[in-house]
Amino acid sequence: MSEAFDAVDVIRTKRDGGRLSDAQVDWVIDAYTRGVVADEQMAALLMAIVLRGMEPGEVARWTKAMIESGERMDLSGVDRPLVDKHSTGGVGDKITLPLAPLVAACGAAVPQLSGRGLGHTGGTLDKLESIAGWRARLSGPEFLAQLRDVGAVVSAAGDSLVPADRKLYALRDVTGTVESIPLIASSIMSKKIAEGVPALVLDVKVGSGAFMKETGAARRLAEAMVRLGEAHGVRTVALLTGMDTPLGHTAGNALEVAESVEVLAGGGPPDVVELTLALAREMLAAAGLSDVDPADALAGGRAMDTWRRMVGAQGGDPDAPLPKAAEVQVVPAPATGVLRRLDAYAVGVAAWRLGAGRARKEDAVSPAAGVVLHAKPGDRVTAGAPLLELHADDPSRFDRALAALDGAIEVADTPVAPPPLLIDRVP
Amino acid sequence: MSEAFDAVDVIRTKRDGGRLSDAQVDWVIDAYTRGVVADEQMAALLMAIVLRGMEPGEVARWTKAMIESGERMDLSGVDRPLVDKHSTGGVGDKITLPLAPLVAACGAAVPQLSGRGLGHTGGTLDKLESIAGWRARLSGPEFLAQLRDVGAVVSAAGDSLVPADRKLYALRDVTGTVESIPLIASSIMSKKIAEGVPALVLDVKVGSGAFMKETGAARRLAEAMVRLGEAHGVRTVALLTGMDTPLGHTAGNALEVAESVEVLAGGGPPDVVELTLALAREMLAAAGLSDVDPADALAGGRAMDTWRRMVGAQGGDPDAPLPKAAEVQVVPAPATGVLRRLDAYAVGVAAWRLGAGRARKEDAVSPAAGVVLHAKPGDRVTAGAPLLELHADDPSRFDRALAALDGAIEVADTPVAPPPLLIDRVP
Repeated sequence: MSEAFDAVDVIRTKRDGGRLSDAQVDWVIDAYTRGVVADEQMAALLMAIVLRGMEPGEVARWTKAMIESGERMDLSGVDRPLVDKHSTGGVGDKITLPLAPLVAACGAAVPQLSGRGLGHTGGTLDKLESIAGWRARLSGPEFLAQLRDVGAVVSAAGDSLVPADRKLYALRDVTGTVESIPLIASSIMSKKIAEGVPALVLDVKVGSGAFMKETGAARRLAEAMVRLGEAHGVRTVALLTGMDTPLGHTAGNALEVAESVEVLAGGGPPDVVELTLALAREMLAAAGLSDVDPADALAGGRAMDTWRRMVGAQGGDPDAPLPKAAEVQVVPAPATGVLRRLDAYAVGVAAWRLGAGRARKEDAVSPAAGVVLHAKPGDRVTAGAPLLELHADDPSRFDRALAALDGAIEVADTPVAPPPLLIDRVP
Repeated sequence: MSEAFDAVDVIRTKRDGGRLSDAQVDWVIDAYTRGVVADEQMAALLMAIVLRGMEPGEVARWTKAMIESGERMDLSGVDRPLVDKHSTGGVGDKITLPLAPLVAACGAAVPQLSGRGLGHTGGTLDKLESIAGWRARLSGPEFLAQLRDVGAVVSAAGDSLVPADRKLYALRDVTGTVESIPLIASSIMSKKIAEGVPALVLDVKVGSGAFMKETGAARRLAEAMVRLGEAHGVRTVALLTGMDTPLGHTAGNALEVAESVEVLAGGGPPDVVELTLALAREMLAAAGLSDVDPADALAGGRAMDTWRRMVGAQGGDPDAPLPKAAEVQVVPAPATGVLRRLDAYAVGVAAWRLGAGRARKEDAVSPAAGVVLHAKPGDRVTAGAPLLELHADDPSRFDRALAALDGAIEVADTPVAPPPLLIDRVP
């Protein structure tokens, strides 16, 4: 079969700082998905994109071509207002767990296609799988039926959703081409747009435990994603939120489920409640339901009811006891004073090394492993009193987890303000 | 087996503008040659090198690592002074054919490991293969014996000479990562240094028919190669020479052999003679034989004697008639006046399309195909009189060759100086 373009010409165009034409973008994504453009050619193109960038119109076309590599979902049979949420990932970021049922309890429908954790950030599916019986894979009809009946679904994406992204993501992972705002934005937004939702709220994390360490870069990513959403007719809003310290008091699968249930029961850590409500308000506004107050749904128990129905619809038992770690090691506070810093990245790596995360896609995770925080930055601590608990199935994991925490804890003599949670909003 | 480095870390270092450490360079070249670093990872690294560059010390180490991927030749059994030459490639560049026997006739030994043509420039091996019986592949002992007895060998490189370059060259060709001075310089110099010669003269072409279109880039490439040679104890000199118009009056395999024999017989086009003598003087000086005048060896017939022995030693019959094309089409001069421009790249592409070159490595070439020039820039031409002859085995090739020449010929009303041949010397 004769090809419309030559891969080397496309690579050279970007290498020399040019803009790829719409036809070049369409061809190269399609030809790569078909296997006509080889991995080594796409790797060279991706590196050229990392270093040369893409113009807004170019990213929009790249995203469109990715979406068209697969099938779009058809959610037209759902009569509630649809709205989705995506987080760029952080340590202790369990927000989807209380948020999806909360927004559903307020009258919207939330179809969440989620991923698994890789590296130091956890994955929503891994967390939910610590609930006995819960399953992430749903058929198309099951997904739609649950969305109509319960209003909230959290499940794994099917293979037909943006196959180009699955190939590109795996390639970027091994070729040092992950760190590119156009490539990150198109990867996230192609999947969200292909889901078929008309409204989307993005939680773009900023800080040591996030992919974006600086507010400027996070804002550029947020702006790129909002532009892509709008270009495809999806009402898109992004919140920039802090990730210098973990969210809540837990990082780990079952530990975060338990903390999410506390929030749904009307308690839970203040930062998790604050962020859940802030995102819920944005989602409800985007869905045209801005007159509903999610705080009422949380306080009144309606969010908890929806959570129980959501878990149960996917085979999970919301009353089953969660797995507990066989081994717990306490890390004491190193001094008396005010906790100035408890580094999110270090806690994320510690939880990962304890077994909560995976180093390779094919690894299994431990549902019980993770870290519990007894204090957060701004809190008073006492030398020798428990500051962290490390949970693991196997005590041989403690040493490397402790090594990850080296230098991650600072105690001050003077009062310290907790780090800001809500940093900015785009647009 | 546990690896000393992670490929993604090495790629990121270069992507972010850093210098690769010696240990990183050694590892990545070795691991790529062994197949532990995948093609897609090396492609990403190569693109990062194209866009970020390499420091002189980094290129030197990269070159050393490439040399060490294979075996070095041992020429210690040759008692004449050894010297080699390399051209970066041009249209009608048959200089190696008269030059190697000429320098050998003056008392040096010239071990030429040459390549085949790809694209619009011809390859020395393809040219010599138009001589009946001549073979490019010699065993190690055959190569050494001929170098000792005749003083000149032109042959294909063995598989054990810089295997890393063979892999990298093929990868660069399909990933748009050819155009990088560090990568070009290390590819050329790794092979020349591994050959084991103590002295080397480089002919760096500049102009439309050359890889380097501008003098500045050609000078940077020449400087990079001279630096690499000196760093490895090889006395290295580079001439920058013009390639805006073809060398001599022919482009094509047997056509160029015939023209080379004219030069060896004391005739031939003035530019071919001038460049052959200039390079011979540099080679003899580098070999410590600066008191020998190569013009005498050419005029006295000693270079021709060495040519006949060199061809004969590799199975070729220097008296056999050269192949002639079945079809010749004449291109007339478009106007009367002085030929201002006869573009080297266009003539090269025309010769290629006539069958003299190959589009893919596995293609065969026609020995008889090519272009004959009846005039050169600066010469007077008459409208309608023959300016070019196109030679092909098959007349169906003429149309695409003529299309390549579109816009390549300009005739002026006023005198025009021929383009400069010898542009500069490094150092």
